[in-house]
Amino acid sequence: MNLLLLHPEDFVAPDVVRISGHRLTHLHEVTKTRPGDRLRAGLLEGSLGSATLLHGDHQSAEFSVILDTPPPEPLPAALLLALPRPKVLLRCLRAAILLGVKEIHLLHSWRVDKSYWQTPLLTPERLREASLLALEQARDTRLPRISLHRRFKPFVEDELEAVAGSRARLLAHPGAPQPLAGTTGPSLLAIGPEGGFIPYEVESLTARGFRPVALGARVLTVEVALAAALGRLGQH
Amino acid sequence: MNLLLLHPEDFVAPDVVRISGHRLTHLHEVTKTRPGDRLRAGLLEGSLGSATLLHGDHQSAEFSVILDTPPPEPLPAALLLALPRPKVLLRCLRAAILLGVKEIHLLHSWRVDKSYWQTPLLTPERLREASLLALEQARDTRLPRISLHRRFKPFVEDELEAVAGSRARLLAHPGAPQPLAGTTGPSLLAIGPEGGFIPYEVESLTARGFRPVALGARVLTVEVALAAALGRLGQH
Repeated sequence: MNLLLLHPEDFVAPDVVRISGHRLTHLHEVTKTRPGDRLRAGLLEGSLGSATLLHGDHQSAEFSVILDTPPPEPLPAALLLALPRPKVLLRCLRAAILLGVKEIHLLHSWRVDKSYWQTPLLTPERLREASLLALEQARDTRLPRISLHRRFKPFVEDELEAVAGSRARLLAHPGAPQPLAGTTGPSLLAIGPEGGFIPYEVESLTARGFRPVALGARVLTVEVALAAALGRLGQH
Repeated sequence: MNLLLLHPEDFVAPDVVRISGHRLTHLHEVTKTRPGDRLRAGLLEGSLGSATLLHGDHQSAEFSVILDTPPPEPLPAALLLALPRPKVLLRCLRAAILLGVKEIHLLHSWRVDKSYWQTPLLTPERLREASLLALEQARDTRLPRISLHRRFKPFVEDELEAVAGSRARLLAHPGAPQPLAGTTGPSLLAIGPEGGFIPYEVESLTARGFRPVALGARVLTVEVALAAALGRLGQH
């Protein structure tokens, strides 16, 4: 935990928070925080700063907090990701959030096994939990919005235009003649499943302005493609 | 398996190979290859092309092969990586090889737990096995060279100059004032352990010409930092 992530309901005074539950367990068992110790802290959706332990026991701990620094700028790239299998999904979400993505669309596609949509990881509670853990690692405070689109065609035909808006539309596609170049402008990056989008899906996306771009000549796994692509899109 | 990776000893005639063992099992159980089917194939350290199944049973299978395409160009970036814990090491090696790295130096550092050096993953056999699996995924044929450096100071003082040579020396370092910019020239990229290199180690590296560069404002895990950084270094 690189950041003590605070919630509005933690505040018992304007600059004092009371912590319990798993964050307290972590402070006792991993950080071994003692009175007077200062930790990096941040308010969910708010500023970063520090928290100094005033006193605590096994029920709760109180910190005085100073939150005076804005959180890191969001990455201007959003993700349109064919739903990976659950274990890979968790790593992909984590990587995307660590790299600053704030808008993630999970999409069905022909090569996505329908059973993947049944995973409990996709409940709002589990997505929120995974997001909070990644924010604590990243030292960030802003949650991503994660949307689920269980049918490819209705989403692409009826919703994608409004979702993409005026952003650059990019499709990570092995073998595309153009490389994905570094850019700092707003973009929406589509990444297919293992094995790729099928030709009909690629055509649907390119017909709506998605430009196929390659990440080198090799066949990447989804999670490696995602991090390598976001690395390029995050340059500044 | 995106590539049937052939070894010189598989050849029973100039353009015929005989396969057995785990590759045969995979052909039977996953690919379900039938006589006449054509697969992508490549010769270890050699060219890419195709292999057409002539005949096979549960003991062995024979393919006629045509290998006429050069493998993908190596990434010009080499890695100097503080040894991660075993599970993360496997994912880091895989990501680096998928992204085309051909030279990987695993290095001790203060925050590397000494027990990590005991993992059987570091035996030449296991490193080769992990590398071959990644080449099959990537559709590449060239093995990386992986070197182990179990002591930081002697390596940095006595060997690093010759290892780095005339390449750009980069140190991925959270909070560095300069970002890691896209580049296509030869480089040696140093990545620390979780928690980072300690100040003495950073000074040792910067004193030898390593330029600290940042990957955005967030704290990344080693595997995400590695893929995002190599994504930038691989642009062409």
